[in-house]
Amino acid sequence: MRYSQLFPKTIREAPKDATAINHKLLVRGGFVDQLMAGSWTLLPLGWRVVTKITQIIREEMDAIGGQEMLMPLMHPKEIWNETGRWESASEVMYQLKDTREKEFALSFTHEEIVMDLLRKHISSYKDLPVAIYHFSTKFRNEPRATGGILRGREFLMKDLYSAHATEKDLMGFYERVSEAYLKIFKRMGFEVYVTEAAGGVFTDRQTREFQVVAEAGEDTIYVKPGTHEAYNKEVFSGNEAEFEVKRAIEVGNIFPFGDKKYAEKMKVGFTDRDGQKKLVFFASYGIGVTRLLGTAVEVFHDDKGIVWPKVIAPFQAHLVGLGAGERESGRAGEVYERLTKLGIEVLWDETERGAGEKFADADLLGIPVRLVVSEKTGDKIEWKGRNRRETELVEIEEAIARLK
Amino acid sequence: MRYSQLFPKTIREAPKDATAINHKLLVRGGFVDQLMAGSWTLLPLGWRVVTKITQIIREEMDAIGGQEMLMPLMHPKEIWNETGRWESASEVMYQLKDTREKEFALSFTHEEIVMDLLRKHISSYKDLPVAIYHFSTKFRNEPRATGGILRGREFLMKDLYSAHATEKDLMGFYERVSEAYLKIFKRMGFEVYVTEAAGGVFTDRQTREFQVVAEAGEDTIYVKPGTHEAYNKEVFSGNEAEFEVKRAIEVGNIFPFGDKKYAEKMKVGFTDRDGQKKLVFFASYGIGVTRLLGTAVEVFHDDKGIVWPKVIAPFQAHLVGLGAGERESGRAGEVYERLTKLGIEVLWDETERGAGEKFADADLLGIPVRLVVSEKTGDKIEWKGRNRRETELVEIEEAIARLK
Repeated sequence: MRYSQLFPKTIREAPKDATAINHKLLVRGGFVDQLMAGSWTLLPLGWRVVTKITQIIREEMDAIGGQEMLMPLMHPKEIWNETGRWESASEVMYQLKDTREKEFALSFTHEEIVMDLLRKHISSYKDLPVAIYHFSTKFRNEPRATGGILRGREFLMKDLYSAHATEKDLMGFYERVSEAYLKIFKRMGFEVYVTEAAGGVFTDRQTREFQVVAEAGEDTIYVKPGTHEAYNKEVFSGNEAEFEVKRAIEVGNIFPFGDKKYAEKMKVGFTDRDGQKKLVFFASYGIGVTRLLGTAVEVFHDDKGIVWPKVIAPFQAHLVGLGAGERESGRAGEVYERLTKLGIEVLWDETERGAGEKFADADLLGIPVRLVVSEKTGDKIEWKGRNRRETELVEIEEAIARLK
Repeated sequence: MRYSQLFPKTIREAPKDATAINHKLLVRGGFVDQLMAGSWTLLPLGWRVVTKITQIIREEMDAIGGQEMLMPLMHPKEIWNETGRWESASEVMYQLKDTREKEFALSFTHEEIVMDLLRKHISSYKDLPVAIYHFSTKFRNEPRATGGILRGREFLMKDLYSAHATEKDLMGFYERVSEAYLKIFKRMGFEVYVTEAAGGVFTDRQTREFQVVAEAGEDTIYVKPGTHEAYNKEVFSGNEAEFEVKRAIEVGNIFPFGDKKYAEKMKVGFTDRDGQKKLVFFASYGIGVTRLLGTAVEVFHDDKGIVWPKVIAPFQAHLVGLGAGERESGRAGEVYERLTKLGIEVLWDETERGAGEKFADADLLGIPVRLVVSEKTGDKIEWKGRNRRETELVEIEEAIARLK
């Protein structure tokens, strides 16, 4: 993509109300734009990163047998009444009436909707297990929408739901999801821990949270060195000397509901092998997708800008042409065509701006590799990793080999 | 994918209230599930088709320079007041208040949101043109939600918006979008026409609608034979003898607003080459994504089920194993592994059901090719196109060559 065509351009100053690093850098880089408190547009650069994050999640969900789908965002009041959450979760849930006085909730989660779907389509043990997920918008009436895109009133989530014939099967799958979650967060380059925590408005049972270590994190966790095991402040009761205390951001959580809370209230059952009617064992599993975008910036940045991990970077190379004639017909243009034709994602800054401004943008946007083509580089290319200080001159073939 | 694991299974009877063909077949096949009037879950099979439809649209939008992004669904009242649409479109727009009495609209379209974004990020003619699009949910308070998934209260849309420095540039791009739209609908196999029509709550100007010929269509169009040109009933004034009358479904529309309606009211301007302040020339372009799913079924079906065009089919081959031992270790399993490893999308019916039931499901689901492996087929495979009556025995290498 040509920088001159990219919408929008970078911004010199962070918004005045921005305190979080992700807020400052994502807005300055043109990754996101704030529509109102807690509500963000994912601009083309931000959307590219989110697309890569969702693809990593999708691969790991599919690998454990998850089936992708998409559920509605506006729900009838009646379904939420079945579990009592129309009342008990009314603080967090946006509720509305249409012109015919029919009442609706906006999706803050989808357990009730999945259960309604399951009771329509499940009748026999042969129909189980089921594991279905979607990437979709969640609306939560947060009292304070803070931390840039970390805590929004409207945000993207991946939510997976599973139903099983036995508690044993449920708990086996629960462990597989737990492992898949660790894999996802590690693929993104995070230091991640699993904590046992309280379930809030979701369940009375203990649940697991996935915590990414970050200075800006709202949570405090007690980490057992050499493991992925950790404890939340609220449940920690160990010997403090054996644990490290870290700040962390919660990026996922998993809830093993069993057959009580939802299946019993919504009568979601099946006929077992022996002809007996039973309730399904149910669980739900969430990952905050836009929160991961913000978390990545909190974890991977320096004083000049973002430092994207390769796997979620919006482009793989940031090509900078310097000097007159580097637009269209220049050598930078040839390098751009060559790399792009090979399927390498390149952002080409072909504007007539000076080196200082172009390099500052490259540092801000955080694409893993900066390539410079100028009179000085001759028939070679200057290569610089975003996380390195030194530059080196390489042949184009060498650059291609490294980027592929 | 193994049929035994697919959620949900096919349903023998169509819902009692279903009159539209797409409603009956999509529900029976387990492609969609109705949550409430006008609101549908896209189940795994339906989501697979929608993913292919969105990918075709994405390719054509990117080819004309569109940049993908994602805008919020809940909007502040203030923005909609700027154009007066909080009032003028209140019949179609869901409106709500939060617990702090702040008022919001749910997205029925995004012109105002794009304009707000543009005025924050555009200042010079150098920042133009801009073409941005997203796939996102739309909410419309339709008095009658009918026609299966053709007219929903919540549905998926692709909406593209463009802003330009001159009317000439706007109209040039408008024509390019028009061509891209025709390409999209033709790639899906539709007979499509462009009609001039009235703009409704969007604009006073004439707009273009994209109409796919289908018996179930709500619209009547007058088609000029041998062209893509047609007229809507409301604007037709030609010699009826020169035109054919057809029923059609509107699947897209494009609105060349110019610099009045939105840019003037929301003060979206830029400084031109000569230092003069000007308003941007603006247009919006929509495609009903879930409506295309329904339209495809209306156009491509027979009395046994759906007949998906290859490019949007949920799988490329429906593999049926017959006889004992055809699960896991049987020859069908080997064929499944072989095809799947080559990246061919196969739905494998490895259930212990009879041939009649399996073939009826294959016809209902409408995957382009049915492959049968049984004792009778020996070391060959029975190949049958969904839209053919005859079967033939082919070597596996031949089947692979045709499917790749």
